[in-house]
Amino acid sequence: MLPIGSTIGILGGGQLGRMLSVAASRLGFKCHIFEPSKNPPAGETSARLTTACYEDIEALKGFAKSVDVVTFEFENVPVEALDVIESIVRISPNRRALRISQDRLFEKEFLNSLDLKTAPYHKVEDSSDIKNALTMFQLPSILKTRKFGYDGKGQIKIDSEKKAAEVIKNFSKSEYILEGLINFSKEISVIAARNSDGQIACFDPGENIHTDGVLDTTTVPSKLPRHIITDAILLTSKILEELNYIGVLGVELFVLDNELIVNEIAPRVHNSGHWTQNGCVIDQFEQHIRAISGWPLGDGRRYMNVIMKNLLGNDILDVSNLIKESKAAIHLYGKEEIKPKRKMGHINHLSEKS
Amino acid sequence: MLPIGSTIGILGGGQLGRMLSVAASRLGFKCHIFEPSKNPPAGETSARLTTACYEDIEALKGFAKSVDVVTFEFENVPVEALDVIESIVRISPNRRALRISQDRLFEKEFLNSLDLKTAPYHKVEDSSDIKNALTMFQLPSILKTRKFGYDGKGQIKIDSEKKAAEVIKNFSKSEYILEGLINFSKEISVIAARNSDGQIACFDPGENIHTDGVLDTTTVPSKLPRHIITDAILLTSKILEELNYIGVLGVELFVLDNELIVNEIAPRVHNSGHWTQNGCVIDQFEQHIRAISGWPLGDGRRYMNVIMKNLLGNDILDVSNLIKESKAAIHLYGKEEIKPKRKMGHINHLSEKS
Repeated sequence: MLPIGSTIGILGGGQLGRMLSVAASRLGFKCHIFEPSKNPPAGETSARLTTACYEDIEALKGFAKSVDVVTFEFENVPVEALDVIESIVRISPNRRALRISQDRLFEKEFLNSLDLKTAPYHKVEDSSDIKNALTMFQLPSILKTRKFGYDGKGQIKIDSEKKAAEVIKNFSKSEYILEGLINFSKEISVIAARNSDGQIACFDPGENIHTDGVLDTTTVPSKLPRHIITDAILLTSKILEELNYIGVLGVELFVLDNELIVNEIAPRVHNSGHWTQNGCVIDQFEQHIRAISGWPLGDGRRYMNVIMKNLLGNDILDVSNLIKESKAAIHLYGKEEIKPKRKMGHINHLSEKS
Repeated sequence: MLPIGSTIGILGGGQLGRMLSVAASRLGFKCHIFEPSKNPPAGETSARLTTACYEDIEALKGFAKSVDVVTFEFENVPVEALDVIESIVRISPNRRALRISQDRLFEKEFLNSLDLKTAPYHKVEDSSDIKNALTMFQLPSILKTRKFGYDGKGQIKIDSEKKAAEVIKNFSKSEYILEGLINFSKEISVIAARNSDGQIACFDPGENIHTDGVLDTTTVPSKLPRHIITDAILLTSKILEELNYIGVLGVELFVLDNELIVNEIAPRVHNSGHWTQNGCVIDQFEQHIRAISGWPLGDGRRYMNVIMKNLLGNDILDVSNLIKESKAAIHLYGKEEIKPKRKMGHINHLSEKS
């Protein structure tokens, strides 16, 4: 067990880092944030902040030496930065989980190796790969960058022969995958934690609605049959075990004809788990801190029905009305600049547990 | 309404300041802590920290200029410091509430002026006052400093003629009151908030148990009859209105033969309100921040039964066992040094609402 008063290093100073640091403070830990951009949300809630880029070896070393464990709020931390840090201090969750989730191809291969279903996919390195792959999948298909994609970024939907020809023509050699589109009826996600004793705690799976590739709402309880929920939890546990995972993991799943198809895994706290802040005694942020600190996991049972709604861009301007609603808890991220679709905060709308 | 991104100044950097700053961050505010001692708990969770004493006029001015409103985590802020700050920026709750709660004599006079019952008391300035007062009260009585008392400090129990003689002999001219002892059956407290629109939100009154003058547990729901609870809430509202109060106020009450006797009022968030962190959607800390920021108050209804237990001194060494318990939420304050009876954290033990 990491002693009270220890310092947790967090790579990334966005809203996830901010809410992780708040959870860490509840357990008597200090946080040190490493973030390239200035005045990040997590800096305001943490004992210490290093403003430096991920290529700054000396800053990385100084950061690593000042902390007792390092975790991260996003999976696209450069490998070289992780190498520097790991030579000095433990990183949790582990590098394998990061490597797999950083690359859509590795991720799909890993999931299939566990006999978990994914969308059909094909590795793409040049335009001839796209041509070949398109003969195997029906349109529409989606061309996705293998790395650095999030919130629908780095994706091209190929929904016609014309679009296919255009994409093939303009494609320059690079690492992509082509994915067959899944006509899913619902999207759910499982947020689960595992600690170093192998203890696993799963939050109730939530049902997600995305708009333009960005999460809009998560609803718990989902309206899925019990056996689907059980399957979702079991397959998440399988992933946690296989990766010898420590921390919180988010698994996004498509539901198609009573079958579960894994969309992607995120080796970190996840936007679709924000409802736990008001629906559970111990939320996803505290479970993550407990797990990486070798503490027993907490009570993750759901005590309320929750609809979590993201506040994107200008949504936040309406805050004075939003907070008038009773049975609502608001969580704002302290971001100075409003941009379209930027995640500025979220609201948990609550009702008695059903 | 204070705009999102504003900075809230907090006088005092202890656990109350720490938990206030965390609540402020949820609403998108920054905090600036003013605290004489080094490395205070609230410094680790706030955007900015000024380490200076309350006599440092320049530091106070710099602090006041950097924030949009000032609040405090303890009532014994020196008057001169408040004068400096108030010449620059608004202080909330207001000075009258502070003045009354800083002085046990003013407090009793104020409460009696509202027709609220208090313990019998007598102003004491020299030893002859003690003699006179003792003729009016039965033993035991308690000699209390008018100012700067907390957690049972600054109090002498006079429980025998011998003790009375000893106290009278050793008494040097100073500001005290002598209070008749109340043989109360229970002690409860009401935590309530009022904002600038006059909106009032009262948390469910909790039942307190003190050990050696320090709060040990608060239990909600209390086992009091409904009419007593209603009376407690009504008298608290009366105090809030009379003081034109903005912020969270704690009122400690003795229950004696179905009557309520006001023990003291605290113009701030209160230890006996810590259960709200896990029993309500919006806790006392967020209600305070909402109130002083001119925001609508939140949903303060109780959704769980809670027993809040303070972790004093060495209690914290047992944390690895304490957190194994399910349905418990732990809150640690990040204090470096353990001292006997020092408040190091608290645990909220939860059960389904009854």
